[in-house]
Amino acid sequence: MVKGKRTDLADADCAIARSVQVIGDWWSILLIREAFIGAQRFNEFQKSLGLAKNILSTRLKKLVAEGILRTEPDPAQPAYKRYVLTRKGEQLHVVLVALWQWGEEFCPEPFELTREIVDVRDGEPLAKLRPAAKDGRVIGPRDFTLADIRRKPSATSRRRAAKV
Amino acid sequence: MVKGKRTDLADADCAIARSVQVIGDWWSILLIREAFIGAQRFNEFQKSLGLAKNILSTRLKKLVAEGILRTEPDPAQPAYKRYVLTRKGEQLHVVLVALWQWGEEFCPEPFELTREIVDVRDGEPLAKLRPAAKDGRVIGPRDFTLADIRRKPSATSRRRAAKV
Repeated sequence: MVKGKRTDLADADCAIARSVQVIGDWWSILLIREAFIGAQRFNEFQKSLGLAKNILSTRLKKLVAEGILRTEPDPAQPAYKRYVLTRKGEQLHVVLVALWQWGEEFCPEPFELTREIVDVRDGEPLAKLRPAAKDGRVIGPRDFTLADIRRKPSATSRRRAAKV
Repeated sequence: MVKGKRTDLADADCAIARSVQVIGDWWSILLIREAFIGAQRFNEFQKSLGLAKNILSTRLKKLVAEGILRTEPDPAQPAYKRYVLTRKGEQLHVVLVALWQWGEEFCPEPFELTREIVDVRDGEPLAKLRPAAKDGRVIGPRDFTLADIRRKPSATSRRRAAKV
């Protein structure tokens, strides 16, 4: 891994810093969005985003290296590869929905949006994402904090134990 | 607004692109995190993040200009100002929780996290954020898409009408 400020960020004891480090940068979020809505081939990403080829290539490589995308031979043209979301990448749908809903509500400029995120089943907009406590209470912006993990057997160590 | 690639991004008919444009960059997400966990003064942000003063100053100004933070006189030292989250800024808590939970689950390196996001009321970790349909069905990574907004009286136009 490259040393420097960005690495320090990932070393931080903060899962937000790790996420932003791994995703890479804002453009990468848009690449991930494209992958969600169906882009798989280099030229499909390029056409949607209008990125220079060398920049797009670097960003896609980074997303593959981070395990967000994986490559596989393109069934239509086996000499070429296509980019597919991994499970890790797919689970970023929560972040995408959160960014969409915030942008939709608070960034109405420069013109009203003509698209929305909908349920594929019935075409209806999704419910608003709401952080909640384990018992279902809605957690507002002032209702959470960061705290030291209480070292009971954690989910992670239980998973590890299960593998042994 | 400055012209260029970044502006094109914000003009896009995509609320994700707007959000990332408005938030600015990844460091800004960490500034917003600091504001959530209590930073208000320039030197508090600086101490936590170790950013150069000129860079920090530019980032804070951008967040104020975008309406995510606002400034007010610091009650302790009225000649100085402090930075406070606006309602628009506070509503980014959903994005922060989504980034935290994803990083916690999928970015376990370089060492296990020692902190977690908890409910201030009882210190328990939050429930996992799950996108859902209006009727409560869980929406997985393959269950949503972008679609043209059906132009029935939208929530936005209803809000506008209510203001007249």
